[in-house]
Amino acid sequence: MEFSSKLLENAVNEMSQLPGIGKRTALRLVLHLLRQPKEQTLDFTKALNTMRSEIKLCKSCHNISDTDICDICANPNRTENIVCVVEDIRDVMAIENTSSFKGLYHVLGGKISPMDGIGPNELNIYSLVEKVKQGRISELIFALGSTMEGDTTNFYIYKQIQGCDVKTSTIARGISVGNELEYTDEVTLGRSIINRIPFEASLKS
Amino acid sequence: MEFSSKLLENAVNEMSQLPGIGKRTALRLVLHLLRQPKEQTLDFTKALNTMRSEIKLCKSCHNISDTDICDICANPNRTENIVCVVEDIRDVMAIENTSSFKGLYHVLGGKISPMDGIGPNELNIYSLVEKVKQGRISELIFALGSTMEGDTTNFYIYKQIQGCDVKTSTIARGISVGNELEYTDEVTLGRSIINRIPFEASLKS
Ligand SMILES: [Zn+2]
Ligand SMILES: [Zn+2]
Repeated sequence: MEFSSKLLENAVNEMSQLPGIGKRTALRLVLHLLRQPKEQTLDFTKALNTMRSEIKLCKSCHNISDTDICDICANPNRTENIVCVVEDIRDVMAIENTSSFKGLYHVLGGKISPMDGIGPNELNIYSLVEKVKQGRISELIFALGSTMEGDTTNFYIYKQIQGCDVKTSTIARGISVGNELEYTDEVTLGRSIINRIPFEASLKS
Repeated sequence: MEFSSKLLENAVNEMSQLPGIGKRTALRLVLHLLRQPKEQTLDFTKALNTMRSEIKLCKSCHNISDTDICDICANPNRTENIVCVVEDIRDVMAIENTSSFKGLYHVLGGKISPMDGIGPNELNIYSLVEKVKQGRISELIFALGSTMEGDTTNFYIYKQIQGCDVKTSTIARGISVGNELEYTDEVTLGRSIINRIPFEASLKS
């Protein structure tokens, strides 16, 4: 792609760093900004910069939050010893949408994926295992989506907490095999939480 | 969509102002930025802001440029009295890619579209008509993509320059009817410029 302007080329190159945004789409988006008032670009970039520099992760569950402890963890009406283990904040949002879960979450920040260089230390696994060892969790629900990385991550955590007094379950395989959680419809997702099965049973299926 | 953070919500809302970017995609893009080093967000937003505030339009053809007169208009090897009328800079880029055109361009900045509130005064039509009336153009090639808005715009300009000593042509309808220029492959686009037909003839087909 040959550009008539360096400024335009830089903007397009930066925009196309975003996942799923090719050069052609990036150009379309950048030209859109050029056609809109300057304020729109300023508002857009300010929202991104403010978010990137000021956003916090909940000190307890690693959910994205504007406060040290997120609204879910701080809610006294939630059952704090039932914890749902998820990959990222989109899964928290998806499950919250179903209104079928009243416990807390633990956001891992990803799944174990040696191919992508993501091992257990890159994820929020240690703090989860500590919570279990301190006896603060009576049931752990694995809700990582049924991909190979999800299964690997579930199993790694499961091994770490062997011998602890904690019930483990995985959300029922109503979710399509190979599918990510966030693409599952609300009804299926809600039902799969209610019908969760003991983790040991899930290993046999 | 319920967000656990106002900062995140603002960023997603701003991102989803971009055309074709829904809330779900916006969230995915924003979470990607959160996973990358802060510098990436800073570089991205800086490139957009610099572009938006410093970019220029060529004083002659309205092409996007970092200088008052764009590289194409300033190139002495181009035939300056053959002018190709296009909608936006993507069309200039697409035609330049074919290496089949050695004249200059005139970028309208859009097409006449009453539905979208875009009339002739919103576009760079006046300056084009002036160039023709001053006798600076011997041939005008309409290259607006064959949509209804494209046809309307072609015809509007054609009426404005009635009686002027200028040859008018449209690029050959090798481009698929109803398709935008930028989605046309290089070979087809290049050929349709070479095989351009007089504008009057295009009205009969
Ligand atoms: Zn929390
Ligand atoms: Zn120019």
